Amino acid sequence: MGYTLAQKIIKSHLVSGDMTPGTEIGLKIDQTLTQDATGTMAYLEFEAMGIKRVKTEKSVAYIDHNTLQTGFENADDHRYIQTVAKKHGIYFSRPGNGICHQLHLERFGRPGATLIGSDSHTPTAGGIGMLAFGAGGLDVAVAMGGGTYYIPMPRMVKVTLTGRLRPWVSAKDIILEVLRRLTVKGGVGKIIEYGGEGILGLSVPQRATITNMGAELGATTSIFPSDDVTLEFLKAQGRESDWIELLPDGDAKYDEVIEINLSELEPLAAKPHSPDNVDTVKNIGPIKINQVCIGSCTNSSLYDMMRVASILRGNKVHPDVSLAIAPGSKQVFTMIAQNGALADMIAAGARILECACGPCIGMGQSPCSGGVSLRTFNRNFEGRSGTADAKVYLVSPETAAISAITGVLTDPRTLGTEPEIRLPETFLINDNMIEPPADEKEADNIEVVRGPNIKPFPKTSPLSDNIEAPCLLKVGDNITTDHIMPAGAKLLPYRSNIPKLSDYCFTRCDETFPSRAKKAGKGIIVGGSNYGQGSSREHAALVPLYLGIKAVVAKSFARIHMANLVNAGILPLIFRNPDDYDKIAQGDELELNSVRETLISGKDLILTDKTNGAKIPVYCEISERQRKMLLAGGLLNYTREQNR
Amino acid sequence: MGYTLAQKIIKSHLVSGDMTPGTEIGLKIDQTLTQDATGTMAYLEFEAMGIKRVKTEKSVAYIDHNTLQTGFENADDHRYIQTVAKKHGIYFSRPGNGICHQLHLERFGRPGATLIGSDSHTPTAGGIGMLAFGAGGLDVAVAMGGGTYYIPMPRMVKVTLTGRLRPWVSAKDIILEVLRRLTVKGGVGKIIEYGGEGILGLSVPQRATITNMGAELGATTSIFPSDDVTLEFLKAQGRESDWIELLPDGDAKYDEVIEINLSELEPLAAKPHSPDNVDTVKNIGPIKINQVCIGSCTNSSLYDMMRVASILRGNKVHPDVSLAIAPGSKQVFTMIAQNGALADMIAAGARILECACGPCIGMGQSPCSGGVSLRTFNRNFEGRSGTADAKVYLVSPETAAISAITGVLTDPRTLGTEPEIRLPETFLINDNMIEPPADEKEADNIEVVRGPNIKPFPKTSPLSDNIEAPCLLKVGDNITTDHIMPAGAKLLPYRSNIPKLSDYCFTRCDETFPSRAKKAGKGIIVGGSNYGQGSSREHAALVPLYLGIKAVVAKSFARIHMANLVNAGILPLIFRNPDDYDKIAQGDELELNSVRETLISGKDLILTDKTNGAKIPVYCEISERQRKMLLAGGLLNYTREQNR
Repeated sequence: MGYTLAQKIIKSHLVSGDMTPGTEIGLKIDQTLTQDATGTMAYLEFEAMGIKRVKTEKSVAYIDHNTLQTGFENADDHRYIQTVAKKHGIYFSRPGNGICHQLHLERFGRPGATLIGSDSHTPTAGGIGMLAFGAGGLDVAVAMGGGTYYIPMPRMVKVTLTGRLRPWVSAKDIILEVLRRLTVKGGVGKIIEYGGEGILGLSVPQRATITNMGAELGATTSIFPSDDVTLEFLKAQGRESDWIELLPDGDAKYDEVIEINLSELEPLAAKPHSPDNVDTVKNIGPIKINQVCIGSCTNSSLYDMMRVASILRGNKVHPDVSLAIAPGSKQVFTMIAQNGALADMIAAGARILECACGPCIGMGQSPCSGGVSLRTFNRNFEGRSGTADAKVYLVSPETAAISAITGVLTDPRTLGTEPEIRLPETFLINDNMIEPPADEKEADNIEVVRGPNIKPFPKTSPLSDNIEAPCLLKVGDNITTDHIMPAGAKLLPYRSNIPKLSDYCFTRCDETFPSRAKKAGKGIIVGGSNYGQGSSREHAALVPLYLGIKAVVAKSFARIHMANLVNAGILPLIFRNPDDYDKIAQGDELELNSVRETLISGKDLILTDKTNGAKIPVYCEISERQRKMLLAGGLLNYTREQNR
Repeated sequence: MGYTLAQKIIKSHLVSGDMTPGTEIGLKIDQTLTQDATGTMAYLEFEAMGIKRVKTEKSVAYIDHNTLQTGFENADDHRYIQTVAKKHGIYFSRPGNGICHQLHLERFGRPGATLIGSDSHTPTAGGIGMLAFGAGGLDVAVAMGGGTYYIPMPRMVKVTLTGRLRPWVSAKDIILEVLRRLTVKGGVGKIIEYGGEGILGLSVPQRATITNMGAELGATTSIFPSDDVTLEFLKAQGRESDWIELLPDGDAKYDEVIEINLSELEPLAAKPHSPDNVDTVKNIGPIKINQVCIGSCTNSSLYDMMRVASILRGNKVHPDVSLAIAPGSKQVFTMIAQNGALADMIAAGARILECACGPCIGMGQSPCSGGVSLRTFNRNFEGRSGTADAKVYLVSPETAAISAITGVLTDPRTLGTEPEIRLPETFLINDNMIEPPADEKEADNIEVVRGPNIKPFPKTSPLSDNIEAPCLLKVGDNITTDHIMPAGAKLLPYRSNIPKLSDYCFTRCDETFPSRAKKAGKGIIVGGSNYGQGSSREHAALVPLYLGIKAVVAKSFARIHMANLVNAGILPLIFRNPDDYDKIAQGDELELNSVRETLISGKDLILTDKTNGAKIPVYCEISERQRKMLLAGGLLNYTREQNR
C-alpha cells in the first residue's frame, strides 16, 4: 500500500508507535522555531532541563510578536532570548527581521523535514513540503533537547484542487472555501494534503497561505508536495540544495477526499467572529469599513505585497479608512523598497508598520469602537483586534486593497483586467539580522541576561488520588485560548510572568474568575466542544495551573491545547455522554476519586457532582506516555523523573 | 529704533499691550495646529465655546501621537478629531501622514505669520521665519475662535552664527551647544533669534532642528530670518507664493547676544537626564549602547534621512543594538522609498516605524532595563522612554547612525570624507492624506462622532476668597510636566479622560499622591524653580484641577505651564523670598486669606503655614487679564462670562 505525503515523512521520522490513526506516535524533530511571546517561557523550560546545546538540525528563535515595546519588558525578553539562544546553539532572528513563518519558509524550512514551533501557525511550512506542527513551548523545549515529539497519529484528508483560479481570486479564497466546507472543527485529528493539477499554478507563498490557515480548521497540519514550484522557490532563495522531490504515492489511501474546482471560486470573506463563517464578498455586499490591515504570516509575501501595491498605485485610501500594511520579512520589505512598490503604497496613504505580527495578534492598530476591519489575517475571534465590539472580516490582499480605496467591502473583480505580477528569479538574500549561535567553546562564556519581568515556571506536583474542587467556571462551545488567556498589546509583554497574567485569566468570559479562583485555591472548568481552539499558547494551561485548576471537563478538546493541559499536569477530561454537560452548574462541588488508579486502569473516571448527586463518566483521550506525564504532574516533572 | 525679526511680527499682530518686556501683549493668531494627544481636549473646549467655524487663516489637526492603537481609544479619538475638524473648518492630517511640525513646515507654515499649537515644539516653525508658540489646548481653542493670544512680551536674544559647520557636525550639534551654554532655564521669557553669516549654510530643516529644541531652553520661541534659503525650501514645496523676505532691522536691539563659531563645533550629546547636560561625543567616549532611535520632529527631514541612509548603506546594525527609524512625514517617507535610501536602511537592519512621534513620546520602542539609548530626539527626561532606568542620550542623526553600526557611542568624524547629499529641487507633493474641511453649508450635516473614552472637561468655579488646604506634595527644582502628568504609551490614550488620568498624577514623584489627593479633596503643591518645564500639556493643570489643587507655590514657573495653571483656575504663586521654600513641609496645613481682594490689589498674598506659624509672602506674576481669569475660575469660565 502506498503512503501519503505526510505518512512518508512520518515514517522516516517515526521513533515510536505504528501509525494507526488515533494512537500515539513519537517523531524525531529536525527543526524547531519559537516566537518571542511563547519563546521566553520555552527557553526557561529548556534551561530547566539542564541541556547545554540543542540537538536539532536547526533551531531558530524569532522575535515578531512583542515589537511595540511599550515598556521595558519586551526589550528585556528580546535580550534574554538573544543571549539564551546564542549560548545553547539556537539561531536568533532579530526584531525587525520579520514574521517567523514567512522567514522560516524563506531561509530555513526544507521539504521532507519535521518542524515544531511554539506557534499555532507553524504548519505554514507545509507550503514547502515540510511536516510542521504547532506545539506548546514545553514540547519545543523537549524537542530542542533531542526528545521525541508525540501526537496522536492523524487521519489523512486529501484536498484535490482542479482548474485554475480566475483573475482576482487568490489563495486566501481557496482556504476560506476549505474553511466554509469543513468548519473550524473539521480538521481536528487530521492532516490536510493538497494535490491535483490546480496546485501547479500556486507558488510556495500561495501554498503557505493555505497551509497557514489549516490551523483554523483545527488540523494537525497541512502540507503540499515538494515539486518544481518548490524548487523554483528554493532557487530564488539560493537554497536549491535543500530541495528534494516529495510526492504522495499514486496508490496512497486517504480517509477523506475533497475536491475544489478553482475555476468556480470567487472572492470570499470570513465574517465576524469565526474563520469559518464564510460567504462571498458579493453576497455580503458593500458594507462600510473603517479599517483595512494587510500582512501577517498568512498574507505578507512579496507576491501579496506586489498585488496590493499594483492596486493602490495612483489611488488614494478612502478618507474614512485607515489602511495599515506590514510586510512579512526584511527580504520582502527591502525588495518592495527597492522596486517602488512600497513608495506606491505610501503615496496612496497606507500606514506602513514594522514587519512583524502586529495587529494580527492585537498588537496595535485596534479599530475604533464598533468598527469594521478587513484583514488579510487568519483569525477574527471576537475582541482579538483589541477592540471588544469591532467586527473583523478575513479577506484576500486583493479584496483588502480595493476596499481600502472604495471605503466599502468590494469585490476585486470590479477592477477589470488583472495585472501580471512578475517576481524576480532570485530574491534578495541578506541574513544580517539572523545571528548564528556561538560555537561550543565560546558558549560557556556567554551570560544569559534576565530582566525583572521574567518569573519562574509555576510549581507542579504529582497527580492527587482524590480531587475535590468546585466547578469554578462553566463555558460553552468553541472556547479559544484567547478566551482562556487573553493576549493583545496589554498582556503579551507578560508572557514570562505567570503571576501577573493570572489576573486576566478567563476575564473575557467572566471578570470575577481570577479573584474567585484565587479565593477558592482550586477548581475545575467545564467546557463544551472544541475547547481550547486557536493559538497554541501554553499559557492557557500554565496560568490555570498557577490558579489551582485541577481538571477541565469538556465535550471535546482542540489538539494542541489538550496536549498543553497534559504537559501542565491538568486533567483533560471528556464527557462520555456529551449531554452530561447539562448536569453540572457553575458553583457545583465536584469530586473525583481513585484518580491515579483509574487513570492507570484506563477505565472511565466518575465525576461526582456533590451538589446534585449526579455521577458523570468522563475519560482521558491520552497516550500511555501522557498518562505517565499526568501522574508525574506534567511534562517538566516527567522529564526530570526520566533524567534521574 | 529698529526692530528685531520677532518684534516685527509681534508689531504686525499686536492686539493689545505696548511691547515692553515682561508686560502682557495680545497677539492676533493666523494659524493654529493641534496634535491628537492634546487635540481631543482642545476641540472639546472649542465645542464648549459654541463657535461654528474657526476664524483663523488656517487651522490644522494632526494625528501623530497616539498611533500605536493598543485599544479602541486612539481610533475613536482620531475619528472624533476628523469629524469635529471637518465640521468646524479645520484641516485634518490623517494618521500616517506624519509629524505635525515637519508637516506644518512642508505644507502650511509661512514666514511672517503667527502660529500657536497645542504642542511645546510648535516653535519648530520658526525655522521658516514664522512666529510660533507652544500653548495650552484652551489657548488654541480660543485662538481658533478668533480670540487673542496673550503672552508676556519676551526679551530678545540674538544668537549669531559665524563660520561654517565642519564635516559630520550638524544642526543638532548647534542647538546642543546653545543648550550647553544657556541651560534648560536660559530661554525663559525670551525669544531666540538666529542670525549671522553662519545661517546661510543651514537649510530650513536644519534651522527647524534648532528652533525645535528652543523649547528645551524654555524659550518663548525661536526664529530664523526668511531669506533665499527659505525661498528655496518653499519653492521645493511648490509654495513660493507664501514666501516673503523677513529680516531684522540693522539697528535692532537685543537684550543679549551670543556668538557661536560653527567652525569650532564638534559632535555633541546631551547626557541623561537633561537636554542641557551636554558634552562632546569624544569626551563621553565609546560607551556601549543598546538602542538607537532616529526621527521625531527634531530630526526626521529628508536631509536627515538621506544622511543616515548614506552611513548605513552596505553596513550592518550591530547585533546588540536595536535601530529604529521613523521618517517625519509621508513626503519624506515616499521620497526615500523612491530613491533607494529606505531600502539601504532596511537592508542594514533598521526597524522602520510609522512616520509619527513614536518613541520620542514614549510611544513604543522602550529600551531594555538599564539600557543606553541614543536618540535624535529633543528630550531625555528620566523615564520618558517608557523604561524607568534607561539612560537616554540626545545626538545628531549622523552620530546615531554610525553608533548603531559600531555598537558604541561613536564620533561620526571617524567616518572619513563626508558624502555630499543632493536634495531634489522639487519635492514630491501629494496632500491626499490631508482632508480639507467641509464648506459651511455642508458642515451642518456633519455628525461629530464621540467614543466612550471621551469625558467632559472638569468643572471649575470662581476663585475662593479663603483657601485652606494641606501641602499635599512638596517637590524640588525642574519638575517637568512629565512628572506632574506622565504620558507614554499607557496613558496617552486617556488624554480625553481626565478622571482616568488622575490616578497617575505625580506618581513619578510619589505613588500615594492620587489617593491622598482624592482623600483630602483639596490641596496645595509646593515646588522649586522652573516648575512645569517640558511638554506643553494642559493636562498637567487640568488633572490637578480635577483633584482639587487650589494653588501651586514655587520658586519659579515654566511659561506655558504657568499659563495652563491660570487657564485652569489654579493659582500659580511665586515665593517672594525663595528661601521660604524651606519653611513648608509636606503635610503642613496652609491658608490664604482675602485672596480675591489681595489679588485685585496687586499686593503680595500671605501664605500662612498653620502647622508652624510661618507667614510667607507670595505673588502672582500675571497680567490683568489673567487676574480676571483666575477670579472667574479659569479661561473657560472667563470666556463664557465675556460672551454673555
